[in-house]
Amino acid sequence: MNKPLLILLAGSLLSTQVSAIEWQALPETAPAPEDNPTTEAKVELGKMLFMDPRFSSTGTVSCNSCHNIMEGGDDSRRVSMGVHGLTGGRNAPTVWNSAFHSVQFWDGRVNLLEDQARGPVTNPVEMGMSDIEQAMDRVRAIPGYKPHFDQAFGEDAMTVENAAKAVAAFERTLITPNSAYDQFVKGDKKALSKQQQVGMKKFADLGCVACHAGAAFNGPQNEFGEGFYSKFPTFVNNEYVDKYKLSEDIGRQAPTGKKEDANMFRVPTLRNITDTAPYFHNGSVNDLHEAVRVMAATQLNHKLSRQDTDDIVTFLEALTGEYPQIMMPRLPATSGKSIVAD
Amino acid sequence: MNKPLLILLAGSLLSTQVSAIEWQALPETAPAPEDNPTTEAKVELGKMLFMDPRFSSTGTVSCNSCHNIMEGGDDSRRVSMGVHGLTGGRNAPTVWNSAFHSVQFWDGRVNLLEDQARGPVTNPVEMGMSDIEQAMDRVRAIPGYKPHFDQAFGEDAMTVENAAKAVAAFERTLITPNSAYDQFVKGDKKALSKQQQVGMKKFADLGCVACHAGAAFNGPQNEFGEGFYSKFPTFVNNEYVDKYKLSEDIGRQAPTGKKEDANMFRVPTLRNITDTAPYFHNGSVNDLHEAVRVMAATQLNHKLSRQDTDDIVTFLEALTGEYPQIMMPRLPATSGKSIVAD
Repeated sequence: MNKPLLILLAGSLLSTQVSAIEWQALPETAPAPEDNPTTEAKVELGKMLFMDPRFSSTGTVSCNSCHNIMEGGDDSRRVSMGVHGLTGGRNAPTVWNSAFHSVQFWDGRVNLLEDQARGPVTNPVEMGMSDIEQAMDRVRAIPGYKPHFDQAFGEDAMTVENAAKAVAAFERTLITPNSAYDQFVKGDKKALSKQQQVGMKKFADLGCVACHAGAAFNGPQNEFGEGFYSKFPTFVNNEYVDKYKLSEDIGRQAPTGKKEDANMFRVPTLRNITDTAPYFHNGSVNDLHEAVRVMAATQLNHKLSRQDTDDIVTFLEALTGEYPQIMMPRLPATSGKSIVAD
Repeated sequence: MNKPLLILLAGSLLSTQVSAIEWQALPETAPAPEDNPTTEAKVELGKMLFMDPRFSSTGTVSCNSCHNIMEGGDDSRRVSMGVHGLTGGRNAPTVWNSAFHSVQFWDGRVNLLEDQARGPVTNPVEMGMSDIEQAMDRVRAIPGYKPHFDQAFGEDAMTVENAAKAVAAFERTLITPNSAYDQFVKGDKKALSKQQQVGMKKFADLGCVACHAGAAFNGPQNEFGEGFYSKFPTFVNNEYVDKYKLSEDIGRQAPTGKKEDANMFRVPTLRNITDTAPYFHNGSVNDLHEAVRVMAATQLNHKLSRQDTDDIVTFLEALTGEYPQIMMPRLPATSGKSIVAD
């Protein structure tokens, strides 16, 4: 088949079949739980707490260390590195658009960003604090934080709960709208190249959209707590499962204890996927092309051709959105005393 | 002596003796070497490189990790923590106003920020890259950096030398003018409290200004390369030398090999000293009051009274300036591949 014909065919197919799928643009605001509406004061405080490494035992690890908002919201590492160079077992999910997940962590073990924010603080291989109140004591030891808590939550508000609310409120502003894909689905038919449109159709026809649906390509926008999971790997009759040790992590079985949750993982967003290598819960695949091949084999029992892989990757590149410009916060001083241990 | 009289006396002394000292406000721009004039394009690129952790072996340590510009330009730690949780032997000096140092590092072993910027990259306990070209290969592997190098330095400009120049150009913009002290010496006599003015006079009369002179309180503004050093500790007949292991580091003797350079250190700036605890080359003193007592004892052979200590600390608090607001850089992606090792 020569090229113009292929393009023509793809174009005609697009106008019929692809339109059957409900392609959604990314909203510019994220849903928030009723008891934590997003306000400017919370967002500003949350940004400070998110960027501040002093609440880790060594003073070297902030939320941003593993979820770097100057990059793709992750850390470019297979698995993250916390205090004392210790490493965990899973790849850091991007914080960008995490507000569109209805559960948090790879295994969906908490429902809200408010709950997620507390986890790493006391994880011994992440921020390594002995308990969450010890971390909060450090926040309280920095006088410059008080006015920000006052403004966001009223007087006497320097609590773990409010700190977590502020971080979550900030994270809900980390949205990357207006990707080429978004422009396309909003009507600008030139926003995607022909190859991207071909890739988009293949992405749909092959069945990727069965899981990677919705505005964030992470499944339906469920209520908070109602997670959207998939078994990974579903098909094990391929070269990738052993090579990338895909079955070693029991996934959601860990928090639930249920056998049927073995290897179940929250479906991750595909937004900004170009910026979040390496891939998968164990970060075992460094290259997006290979990640697409692995997905097709393990989730759809399909061996992708080189052309199909290229087309789909080209489409995925169109999911990288506009990162908002963010002013660095000024982290208040402890005024002549360090609060960090060795 | 009752309080009003003390204030009166201090006031009258200020108008005579203190004026004999040439108190200088902090300039709003910093000197740059002839071959690296500061330009907007360099500053923007330098900011990106400064904030990017991907040029450390683990992908976890950027310049900003130890010289956090969201805080006091350091890391709140006794000694810094680099890749794999390894620690070095010295306290990270603040990057704020570092452009006003005529030599770099505690031992003044290089002259320019351009030279300083390369050091930590290949230090095994800092950024841990095997050689500087390996780090530069990572920069070159990120396509989004090229246009920034092009704009700052012209075509085919992705060299270690230019990367260092860009980082140095950015660092030369990290200036904190307009402290209460600066306002005072520019003529606003209400900018300092009475106690601060008393502390200022004591700071001068006791002899602190012998070393901590000039606009940055780090000695005279010498030509690049002409360092201003002091022996620390000079006096060892006090309780602090053993307690804080002040004599253990041979200082400038290490790079020069000269016996007369033993325990010689570059005189650090006192600008923003409230924001840079813990103190000294080994970070052994956590509290600014104690640091002032140690200084008086070891450098002036003087045991400070509690009142004198308080007054001087109060004056030092007036040296904390205005930190400019800085937009977070967007660190370009590697497009579907991580360049970071484990």
